[in-house]
Amino acid sequence: MSNILEDIKKTIIRRLPEEVQVAQVEFEGPEVVIYTKNPEIITEKGDLVRNIAKDMRKRIIIRSDKSVLLDPEKTIEKVREIVPEAAEITDISFDEVTCEVIIVSKKPGLVIGKFGVTSRAITKNTGWAPKILRTPPISSEIIERIRNVNRNNSKERKKILQTLGARIHQGTKHDSDWARLTSMGGFKEVGRSCMLLQTPNSRVMLDCGVNVAGSDDKSSFPYLNVPEFNLEDLDGIIISHAHLDHCGFVPFLYHYGYEGPIYCTTPTRDLMTLLQLDHIDIAHREGNPLPFTSKHVQKSLKHTITLDYEEVTDISPDIKLTFHDAGHIIGSAMSHMHIGDGDHNIVYTGDFKFEKSRLLGAATHKFPRVETLVMESTYGGKDDVQPSRNSAEKELMKTIYRTLKRGGKVLIPVFAVGRAQELMIVLEEYMTHGMIEEVPIYIDGMIWEATAIHTARPEYLSKDLRDQIFHAGRNPFMSEPFIKVRKPDQRDDIIDGKPAIILSTSGMLTGGNSVEYFKKLCDDEKNTLIFVGYQSEGSLGRRIQKGWKKIPLKEDGKTNVYYVKMEVKTLSGFSGHSNRRQLMEYVKRLTVKPEKIITCHGDQYKTVDLATSIHRSYKIETRTPLNLEATRIL
Amino acid sequence: MSNILEDIKKTIIRRLPEEVQVAQVEFEGPEVVIYTKNPEIITEKGDLVRNIAKDMRKRIIIRSDKSVLLDPEKTIEKVREIVPEAAEITDISFDEVTCEVIIVSKKPGLVIGKFGVTSRAITKNTGWAPKILRTPPISSEIIERIRNVNRNNSKERKKILQTLGARIHQGTKHDSDWARLTSMGGFKEVGRSCMLLQTPNSRVMLDCGVNVAGSDDKSSFPYLNVPEFNLEDLDGIIISHAHLDHCGFVPFLYHYGYEGPIYCTTPTRDLMTLLQLDHIDIAHREGNPLPFTSKHVQKSLKHTITLDYEEVTDISPDIKLTFHDAGHIIGSAMSHMHIGDGDHNIVYTGDFKFEKSRLLGAATHKFPRVETLVMESTYGGKDDVQPSRNSAEKELMKTIYRTLKRGGKVLIPVFAVGRAQELMIVLEEYMTHGMIEEVPIYIDGMIWEATAIHTARPEYLSKDLRDQIFHAGRNPFMSEPFIKVRKPDQRDDIIDGKPAIILSTSGMLTGGNSVEYFKKLCDDEKNTLIFVGYQSEGSLGRRIQKGWKKIPLKEDGKTNVYYVKMEVKTLSGFSGHSNRRQLMEYVKRLTVKPEKIITCHGDQYKTVDLATSIHRSYKIETRTPLNLEATRIL
Repeated sequence: MSNILEDIKKTIIRRLPEEVQVAQVEFEGPEVVIYTKNPEIITEKGDLVRNIAKDMRKRIIIRSDKSVLLDPEKTIEKVREIVPEAAEITDISFDEVTCEVIIVSKKPGLVIGKFGVTSRAITKNTGWAPKILRTPPISSEIIERIRNVNRNNSKERKKILQTLGARIHQGTKHDSDWARLTSMGGFKEVGRSCMLLQTPNSRVMLDCGVNVAGSDDKSSFPYLNVPEFNLEDLDGIIISHAHLDHCGFVPFLYHYGYEGPIYCTTPTRDLMTLLQLDHIDIAHREGNPLPFTSKHVQKSLKHTITLDYEEVTDISPDIKLTFHDAGHIIGSAMSHMHIGDGDHNIVYTGDFKFEKSRLLGAATHKFPRVETLVMESTYGGKDDVQPSRNSAEKELMKTIYRTLKRGGKVLIPVFAVGRAQELMIVLEEYMTHGMIEEVPIYIDGMIWEATAIHTARPEYLSKDLRDQIFHAGRNPFMSEPFIKVRKPDQRDDIIDGKPAIILSTSGMLTGGNSVEYFKKLCDDEKNTLIFVGYQSEGSLGRRIQKGWKKIPLKEDGKTNVYYVKMEVKTLSGFSGHSNRRQLMEYVKRLTVKPEKIITCHGDQYKTVDLATSIHRSYKIETRTPLNLEATRIL
Repeated sequence: MSNILEDIKKTIIRRLPEEVQVAQVEFEGPEVVIYTKNPEIITEKGDLVRNIAKDMRKRIIIRSDKSVLLDPEKTIEKVREIVPEAAEITDISFDEVTCEVIIVSKKPGLVIGKFGVTSRAITKNTGWAPKILRTPPISSEIIERIRNVNRNNSKERKKILQTLGARIHQGTKHDSDWARLTSMGGFKEVGRSCMLLQTPNSRVMLDCGVNVAGSDDKSSFPYLNVPEFNLEDLDGIIISHAHLDHCGFVPFLYHYGYEGPIYCTTPTRDLMTLLQLDHIDIAHREGNPLPFTSKHVQKSLKHTITLDYEEVTDISPDIKLTFHDAGHIIGSAMSHMHIGDGDHNIVYTGDFKFEKSRLLGAATHKFPRVETLVMESTYGGKDDVQPSRNSAEKELMKTIYRTLKRGGKVLIPVFAVGRAQELMIVLEEYMTHGMIEEVPIYIDGMIWEATAIHTARPEYLSKDLRDQIFHAGRNPFMSEPFIKVRKPDQRDDIIDGKPAIILSTSGMLTGGNSVEYFKKLCDDEKNTLIFVGYQSEGSLGRRIQKGWKKIPLKEDGKTNVYYVKMEVKTLSGFSGHSNRRQLMEYVKRLTVKPEKIITCHGDQYKTVDLATSIHRSYKIETRTPLNLEATRIL
């Protein structure tokens, strides 16, 4: 371990100009950090470092040695002097462990400056490396909480990252001449997505979700008891996106002693934290506590490494990970894993949408190499022909128009993350243009907080939204009709009040406030219930969708029956998933033809149907493994 | 552990007549042993013990407590008094650990007596439980050696069996609600057969072979580095039959610390030991030593538990094993495994012949239940239509007749075990009936010893042979034309001598004496080389079969070229494997229709072709996993 680091240090010193004084070289997770007494010389020579990094095939970060840091108070002065006032800095703090000055600003672009000129000036004048964060336009408890965790655990985190770095860079012990994928959850089913990628040198987990509609622990949680899995051998966990069926079981691993990293994008980290904490709360309130607590979410945060799209990162001795936009929800990622020395490339799509939406861009279909593609098949069945987004929007408007006109209320149960924000943008647009009556749009449950996180990460949104936010200075999420439901008793007023639109979680009526609204709105035929997302088998949503008119619900130990008289509408065009045509199109449009495609994340029939069609149309070998099976990919 | 044993003891005492004094109840591997001071009372009441065993679903053995044992010298007298002289007892010894008197006799049936009356009389009169063994008609070094290992390690073995018993009977910790099979070798290939059956409570290995034609360790040995495999968790190893591609790597496991049991039939144990020791010798002589030694074979013997066909045995908390005749070589077994409490039944065929031969009966096709069938597909290709046994025999005779007539010699490279004995019986039959000239039939290499083992286990041979041996008192293996090659210099005399038939190992010319004969006989067109068994890809045999006329061979560091002028003949009708028609017929004739069939042990094309045909013809789901894949069976 120390030998590798020594070698790296020697190489770096040899290639840097003689006047550079390298104080220390350290691993920081996947990255190599050079602490120097003359950071200004190196930062001026960006190309030099880039070339060293390229030749060593490692990511290099430059930081100043403690001895050359300006004192914090003077640094704050200097920063305010260098950064234009328009940047609206809201906070400046220091991380003494990493020698970073953390600058929180409403316009972080102005702190960076053109080609990084302002940011470099800060380093040059203060020694501190600037870490530049955005002030959320809507304040976000979660982002605040995460920033605190990072601030308060800087020392511990540094240790974690050093240990990890040594593990990643330890070199391979065996030839990487095979690779395989064990299905641990979410195969021939939707929910509890989880798989284990194994090579002779590595074990990496892809997603670790829960099936929130599962009837018991066995059907809700992934098969962690699969014989090839054990926590000590795990090199890392990759999370594709923040929905609970992809990340809900991660805290369990930390509860049982996992000490390794999680890799995800920044929005995924934020939203994942939000959803996990909420899940723990709800389960606790419902008297069915989860086998972990918020303590383990906190622990997981200390081990989380966020990566941007298109950033190549070593995550184990023989696996390099690159995230690409998946277009499903904000921060959702396709994971491209390069195994060994050109031996194999595998892409796990996660959930993806191969079409632009109002909120996001379309999923990437460009990869340099892909031998194995693991793809979702939620709507992979022959019959999963969904209406276009455009006609779905029209149908939504008609339904809302009709309901409001007859004096009813519209209840839209939505996932807090993704569908909710997409609908907010649609409703805002139509209301602004006077195409539906201007009524209050109540935002209940976690949707508000999830929206705040969206506003804090505009760089992950669609080009259209970015343009509105960055250039027109207009943030549609902050529009007037949106009203946050702040207290429980506000709900009764909403239900007894005037026509309105209510967006509330959970999206499948499996708990949360949407069920409360449903119970009070269901027996009035003036009202309307609109489903805009997938309703999984066993959920209350699915039952209502199927046309059940009498719904027995257990409450406080007894069973009450609810009669569904309200209008029930399903609008499938808003899905964050690709429809059948888009799934097929995606395979066709991929810039490289994979040798093997594994389908997952879909009902048994759809998984198989999609695989069969792909095989017939494109002559690609397909596999449809069951949970607990291991499929060879190399 | 001790609790379970206590419970069992209580149950047994409660159900036995009051006058029976139970001294001790112990586990002995899968069995429960009752030590009593009045064995005669229990042995008289056979039904009672049978019923207790049936209700407890355990196998029960009755032995005497040490205090009631007659002194050895007097026991020998008593035994000779009780057993008729015609039994021809050749040895009597004692195992003080298990309180058994070991009686070796030429006619063991007479020691047992009608319905066991003689054997019971021995117990009644001496206290000792008789263990009755057959005196090999041809003396066998291996059988002698194994008997010595057992005699000398009785105490250690008892401890091993007690530990094992506690493990098997510990009860299940989880529901047995899934089961899967990991392919570790011999899938979409022939050689190094190995798989791992896993349930939530058990790990059992099925076969552990080597590919003797492999080019390096990686292609020769099974994938023991598959992540779900580790020695400590292994509950047991089941060996289907003695060929090295099914058992050759077992000593390696004992070398690396495995302490658990091997289950196989008695002939498999004997022949496996023979072949493993020979393999170690050859590899050592060729300067390419194996990663284990004869010490580890010896260790494995201490852990071997032999089972008869049709005997149901607990081998783990949730798996019961029953062997059935596979008709491939002597002692070859199909393994029927019953998982959990009626949850699933899987049959692994091993190599099998679904046709009677001169040597053996046909493979069993009757099972009470089979949900998953794992079957070999060596000759599973559409084109694997082989001539009948009858026409193969005729072709053999014609070829031999022709060769002898022109003054040539016939070299038949054979596996020491199986094909060799089958041919011996055929040649003996034809020679006795004067249908070919009476010439010496030289038996070289291990064939002789393997034949001795066959003669020691006549109960595993075909009905026809048993009738000849038991009733007509005529053992064809001991016929006159067979001459054992005892010394290396005898070979030159044979080569320079008169026309003759030579049976020699190895069967694929991958080493051994058959290569030496080949080198000296190949350039004379009077001679003939006859292949009667499978020649695997990469072997010298396969190359000659393909028609190579110039064979370069490395010897003492330099390469010599051999010219093949001798006649080369392939007779596929003698295979110990089912041909394509028999494989298909087997599935059809199975008394129960499996839900899933997994094909293995065949070239990629044949494995897939057989699976496809089965699926088309019988509408059964088929799977053709690769090595390193795990397939769900429950």
